[in-house]
Amino acid sequence: MKTDIQIAQEATLQPIEEVAAKLGISNEVLEPYGKTKAKIDFTQLDMDDNNLGKLILVTAITPTPAGEGKTTTSIGLADGLSKIGKKTAVALREPSLGPVFGVKGGAAGGGYAQVVPMEDINLHFTGDFHAIGAATNLIAALLDNHIHHGNALDIDVNRIVWRRVVDMNDRQLRNIVNGLGRRADGVPREDGYDIVVASEVMAAFCLSNSLAELKEKLGNMIVAYTRKDNSPVTVKDINGAGAATALLKDAIKPNIVQTLEGTPAFIHGGPFANIAHGCNSIIATKLAMNYADYTITEAGFGADLGAEKFIDIKARQAGIKPDAVVVVATIRALKMHGGVDKKELGPENVEALRKGMPNLLRHIDNLQNVFGLNPVVAINAFPTDTEAEIEALREECEKVGVKVVLSTHFVNGGEGAVDLANAVVEAAEAENNFKFAYDLETSIEEKVEALVTKIYRGAGVEFTPAALKKVKQFTDQGMGNLPICMAKTQYSFSDDKALVGAPEGFKVVIRDLTVSAGAGFIVCLTGDIMKMPGLPKEPAANRIDVDEKGNIEGLF
Amino acid sequence: MKTDIQIAQEATLQPIEEVAAKLGISNEVLEPYGKTKAKIDFTQLDMDDNNLGKLILVTAITPTPAGEGKTTTSIGLADGLSKIGKKTAVALREPSLGPVFGVKGGAAGGGYAQVVPMEDINLHFTGDFHAIGAATNLIAALLDNHIHHGNALDIDVNRIVWRRVVDMNDRQLRNIVNGLGRRADGVPREDGYDIVVASEVMAAFCLSNSLAELKEKLGNMIVAYTRKDNSPVTVKDINGAGAATALLKDAIKPNIVQTLEGTPAFIHGGPFANIAHGCNSIIATKLAMNYADYTITEAGFGADLGAEKFIDIKARQAGIKPDAVVVVATIRALKMHGGVDKKELGPENVEALRKGMPNLLRHIDNLQNVFGLNPVVAINAFPTDTEAEIEALREECEKVGVKVVLSTHFVNGGEGAVDLANAVVEAAEAENNFKFAYDLETSIEEKVEALVTKIYRGAGVEFTPAALKKVKQFTDQGMGNLPICMAKTQYSFSDDKALVGAPEGFKVVIRDLTVSAGAGFIVCLTGDIMKMPGLPKEPAANRIDVDEKGNIEGLF
Repeated sequence: MKTDIQIAQEATLQPIEEVAAKLGISNEVLEPYGKTKAKIDFTQLDMDDNNLGKLILVTAITPTPAGEGKTTTSIGLADGLSKIGKKTAVALREPSLGPVFGVKGGAAGGGYAQVVPMEDINLHFTGDFHAIGAATNLIAALLDNHIHHGNALDIDVNRIVWRRVVDMNDRQLRNIVNGLGRRADGVPREDGYDIVVASEVMAAFCLSNSLAELKEKLGNMIVAYTRKDNSPVTVKDINGAGAATALLKDAIKPNIVQTLEGTPAFIHGGPFANIAHGCNSIIATKLAMNYADYTITEAGFGADLGAEKFIDIKARQAGIKPDAVVVVATIRALKMHGGVDKKELGPENVEALRKGMPNLLRHIDNLQNVFGLNPVVAINAFPTDTEAEIEALREECEKVGVKVVLSTHFVNGGEGAVDLANAVVEAAEAENNFKFAYDLETSIEEKVEALVTKIYRGAGVEFTPAALKKVKQFTDQGMGNLPICMAKTQYSFSDDKALVGAPEGFKVVIRDLTVSAGAGFIVCLTGDIMKMPGLPKEPAANRIDVDEKGNIEGLF
Repeated sequence: MKTDIQIAQEATLQPIEEVAAKLGISNEVLEPYGKTKAKIDFTQLDMDDNNLGKLILVTAITPTPAGEGKTTTSIGLADGLSKIGKKTAVALREPSLGPVFGVKGGAAGGGYAQVVPMEDINLHFTGDFHAIGAATNLIAALLDNHIHHGNALDIDVNRIVWRRVVDMNDRQLRNIVNGLGRRADGVPREDGYDIVVASEVMAAFCLSNSLAELKEKLGNMIVAYTRKDNSPVTVKDINGAGAATALLKDAIKPNIVQTLEGTPAFIHGGPFANIAHGCNSIIATKLAMNYADYTITEAGFGADLGAEKFIDIKARQAGIKPDAVVVVATIRALKMHGGVDKKELGPENVEALRKGMPNLLRHIDNLQNVFGLNPVVAINAFPTDTEAEIEALREECEKVGVKVVLSTHFVNGGEGAVDLANAVVEAAEAENNFKFAYDLETSIEEKVEALVTKIYRGAGVEFTPAALKKVKQFTDQGMGNLPICMAKTQYSFSDDKALVGAPEGFKVVIRDLTVSAGAGFIVCLTGDIMKMPGLPKEPAANRIDVDEKGNIEGLF
């Protein structure tokens, strides 16, 4: 089979105004970036939140090194729905330059389920991440400038919580000391960089319903605490909200591109899925839902983290709800949950598959019974899958009333996802009983308890003394009613990544809490979270090249 | 009078394809960024370097705090030439976000001589500076990653010369220590950030004739020296040239916008004028010259630095030459060169003006006799200028055969620059005897000597022992034939900024040398050069705001 970039470069793209016109979005509101990318000036559109199309959330089993393929399934499903005559859009996250130059290469789907132009989407695209980086770094510069010029706000340099960012995997910047040199060169202090996708600005960008709301969120972000009484200092306090919003005035407009088959694709925003909520922007999702009959969107990690945050954070903040949920699984990954080593996934092994099924079934049960939704299981087909394995999977799922559909979009594009599309339409047209996993009005501890016991199925929660202190502080400061963003390993229902499958009896330890007062959630940390990845020994950057006409090579 | 942003926001912009069509550039090669900005895919154009239009270089007297107005004069002149029926383009540098949020505010002209959309040009524009920043930071990440993963190239962490960059005034980042923390967090070392415009990538970007040449230049950039024998380690050695070029594949395409009067404006690239050459990109300039009968371009600082570097570095590298030179002066600034304090510039003072004239006359003499060009003096009019002052100025210039033209473009737009346009056409149609200030084949010392004695009119040059060591090193390493980029104060012909007017008898001390082996020049440092500005106590960012529709306020 051809490589992703070969397939992408051989595709004939439709002019972006034709792609937008499929949804009834007129040329007037398009701000083109080249011929095949555009931003949509949503401020000129009359959007009606009471008349939205169907929303399909694509989530997955607990991830394994075998790979599941949520993004390709989202894209393939969108093309499948287009094929059966539905007016469809797909709404996804933007790729980060970090992974592009690191291990992973591109992140715009794969095979015959890609969004294009893939090189542009993977590189700077329309500049949104640079704008988010610039806004974050401007706030940092204003903060240090305030301290340098007399520190009228009495900021404690040991309690600065705002970090600079860059859209790059650069471990060298994780821990730094800056402000060194002469008196004119700033105030020496410990600091560090995160990757752009880990920034609070990114999260707030994705959780805003308008530019005005983004400005408010930016203003509320906490950058530091005071020396005297440990009270929060916000972006508003250092007069940074207006200028930071000015830097984001274009970025906030959703980007439209297309799938290989010409289905409209909204690619906009991309926060981390651990210390943030891991979904594309609310504005893009709602814009898609205003114009498409079916909007497909994806959430990061497995359903315990990604779907839960999509529902309890994003959907709650946006006032939307999914009409159906697709749980992506592979036979290979389920066999890994059944205890098989990655190197042994080739041969048929129905017993291992059955042993791994409880992982899938627990996610299904959560979606059905905690969130009241209608799930469909999509098997992202691999050449090694056997009839017996697929049959065993189907049998187990049918016991709980869930349809299993084999999808071959990776090699067949939308045609390979027609069965999945039909199953999704059926699920989306059925009634559901949508609800959140917790009420915002309960205490921080109660909300965490609900997640651990109802979703992860752990035996209970423990808060460290440091975490309890933060619980009290945030509650006292009036932030106890924010939703919870759990920063937990994505590789297990528990907080121990070695516990694959469907572990029981474990306790989840909340080590520490942080608040994203602007984005609007409390982060519960269960372990070390890497907010600045590093490059591998042989980074993807080494093989990326470009010819004299600007054609990219080596970007997979 | 209205503020710059009021004037800009009230303007009716022409669709960018109509602006490009004025030069005969077809819609096919335009890559739009919104409706009023575009990149031009020059790789699709048949450019002919043997059939170029006239090139007019706009330079100035030695800058003073009174301001001269090179950019507004360049824009006004372009509109004036359009008014008299010439097919004209203006080719300028892109603004940096640093000054936008710092002291200065916007940098896209002023009054009725602006390029628009000014907010976009001043903010991210088409993302070029972010791309240049990302390329620079990718190379830094690859360098530190190489060291972290075993340092096979034997790089000396004390001899790393590559610095990370950000497009922000952020003094806190001038001197840092990074790689702190655990073994997995990199290798501790001293480091620091420069502003993007000070990067070698920016300089090379502007000095390349093609994407292939840019890749070659990137590959040749020196990032560090080895422990064992102090030999240079390049970007090519750490396999970074291909990926860095991939990040620049779109940025390298010139941007087209328009003046308030609809004259095509190419705004592309913007290197520092001290440690780099201070002009917009070669590709944009030559593209303009391929399509316009008159191309107006600007060089940084006064003519001793900006025009000299334009000629000896950029024009030499591009294979182009100016057909006429405009020297911008103001009556106010000349009075400052005559010893008047900034607060006393209002009242008429012909004596001070005459006392300041030698500054202008020395620049004129250099342009006429060192470079063999035809200068025109443009007086950027101020309300305080008097008839007698202008007459005195005219009289002095006529003695050396140079026309003086009063230009009122700031308040009258192109109409106010018609006289200047006519004078420029006359000068450009006359023969000239263009030559460089030095031959590349002479030694580094001889080239510096030529600049100091022929251009600055100093008594001689002194090299510190450290500088002499570098002269020897660079010569031994085969780089002695590169042009010289003098990093000297812009406020004096000498290396002492207090010596205004036309000082004599001074010596210039070369404190140190650095080489930009990729961009292709040797930098001679005469004093401390600030490569990362700081924000003032009340930064412009504090007053910048944006309404819910994305309209910017407070950007002057």
